Amino acid sequence: MAELLKGAPVAAALDEKTREAVHLLKIRGVRPTLGILRVGERPDDTAYESAAVRRCEKLGIEVRRVSLPEDVKQGALLAQIARLNSDDNVHGVLMFRPLPVQLDEEEACAALMTSKDLDGVTPGSAALLYTGAPGGFAPCTAEAVIALLEHYGVPLEGRRAVVVGRSLVIGKPVAMLLLEKNATVTVCHSRTRALPELTRRADIVVAALGRAESLTADCFAPGQTVVDVGINYSEERGKLVGDVDFDAVSGLVAAITPVPAGVGAVTTAVLAKHVVRAAGGML
Amino acid sequence: MAELLKGAPVAAALDEKTREAVHLLKIRGVRPTLGILRVGERPDDTAYESAAVRRCEKLGIEVRRVSLPEDVKQGALLAQIARLNSDDNVHGVLMFRPLPVQLDEEEACAALMTSKDLDGVTPGSAALLYTGAPGGFAPCTAEAVIALLEHYGVPLEGRRAVVVGRSLVIGKPVAMLLLEKNATVTVCHSRTRALPELTRRADIVVAALGRAESLTADCFAPGQTVVDVGINYSEERGKLVGDVDFDAVSGLVAAITPVPAGVGAVTTAVLAKHVVRAAGGML
Repeated sequence: MAELLKGAPVAAALDEKTREAVHLLKIRGVRPTLGILRVGERPDDTAYESAAVRRCEKLGIEVRRVSLPEDVKQGALLAQIARLNSDDNVHGVLMFRPLPVQLDEEEACAALMTSKDLDGVTPGSAALLYTGAPGGFAPCTAEAVIALLEHYGVPLEGRRAVVVGRSLVIGKPVAMLLLEKNATVTVCHSRTRALPELTRRADIVVAALGRAESLTADCFAPGQTVVDVGINYSEERGKLVGDVDFDAVSGLVAAITPVPAGVGAVTTAVLAKHVVRAAGGML
Repeated sequence: MAELLKGAPVAAALDEKTREAVHLLKIRGVRPTLGILRVGERPDDTAYESAAVRRCEKLGIEVRRVSLPEDVKQGALLAQIARLNSDDNVHGVLMFRPLPVQLDEEEACAALMTSKDLDGVTPGSAALLYTGAPGGFAPCTAEAVIALLEHYGVPLEGRRAVVVGRSLVIGKPVAMLLLEKNATVTVCHSRTRALPELTRRADIVVAALGRAESLTADCFAPGQTVVDVGINYSEERGKLVGDVDFDAVSGLVAAITPVPAGVGAVTTAVLAKHVVRAAGGML
């Protein structure tokens, strides 16, 4: 059985540093504050929001919640973004996506100040991530993958990492972050041929396809570390499952994240860390 | 002996379309114009500038050349960039880099308007390239690699491409462009272990390390297409050589670009195409 790379200990270690940084900020008179901007009431969003708020409260981070009706107009959304941008008491913003179809998501993302863009949705953040320049915020889930690997001492430099998926939320940013850590990075996707051949030769496989249990045992080999970013509800199994067929794969590889309680458990801890960094804390 | 993927026919094919687009623009009263901004007199820059000017003249594209002294101050450079930005008769700008050390290159690049950034040096261009959004300009040399592969009918979709090098001028942008073409892309670099194993399994190898003849025959396998972006002066051999050991590799692979007269011969044709696109031509 593979080592189980649970998210909770990673989040706890991140939180310890964040709490200390919050303390130091408050001594300097700064009250780190997260703005949350939500349109509508999607259960995924509200569940994540609750988790983020709980973590922030626990860490002494304040939260300013802005929720807009499902049918909000673009102008009203942009006005809220502008308010959050100009409010010096809000250090960073999490805006839930996807936005309802009547809204121009690209324009909304671009309207957010890069320095407050805690989840890496703006063009400015994309440019910093791609170029490897300091100062930007990567999407929290992508950074959670790296935090998890580093917490468990998985070597990255010079190792072969295969990222399955090329979304802007996970696949591409994880690839950039792994490259920044000097891993040799391969990005696979729906058009990739003979995927199992590629993933089997990796030291690290990051699964971010968004298809339930689609990476089966033939994709893996002994000794590998597997990070499963997928969170899918399986009708068949009546529970949440990852993109990896955990039952078959966990007996084969060296280490694997569970779903749930793997990467997903680290994401809000990364968000809290980003709030503190945006507020000027040393993290 | 491998098929020789020369750059000249690729450039000629690009030029044919560019010439037609210039013609159509002129009928609409638009005179496509390239601004060239050069600081100092580095021989590499002046040689490239001459080649670019010759190609533009041949295609009916006008060129506005701005050359500044080697010891120019940042303010004077920024003033020139602002002038080029605001000049509606200049459709796009090529700014030579690296800039002399007294200058803040990052600030200078960011000062250029993204819509006029023909060589992909601004954060705005980086964001468009990384996200795969339309409308931006990739660095000309990176796009030349793709143009060359497409000209010679090398299939990209679903194929394995290994890019050796991760610079912002070639390695990373080529990787992004190949990914956009649905190739499966691996980025290798100085910290990559067992590089030959990785390159040998690729369908396409793009060499952009900047080290003379450093990819030797053991890195390649029959059937591969090799694009050599390196241009190095070999003291030993008294001539320009690529990053690939051409003499040893050309007998082994299916197709390979020569150095010189390979990718390098396509770059100014891509630049000219970018001028026309920036001027509103359909390319």
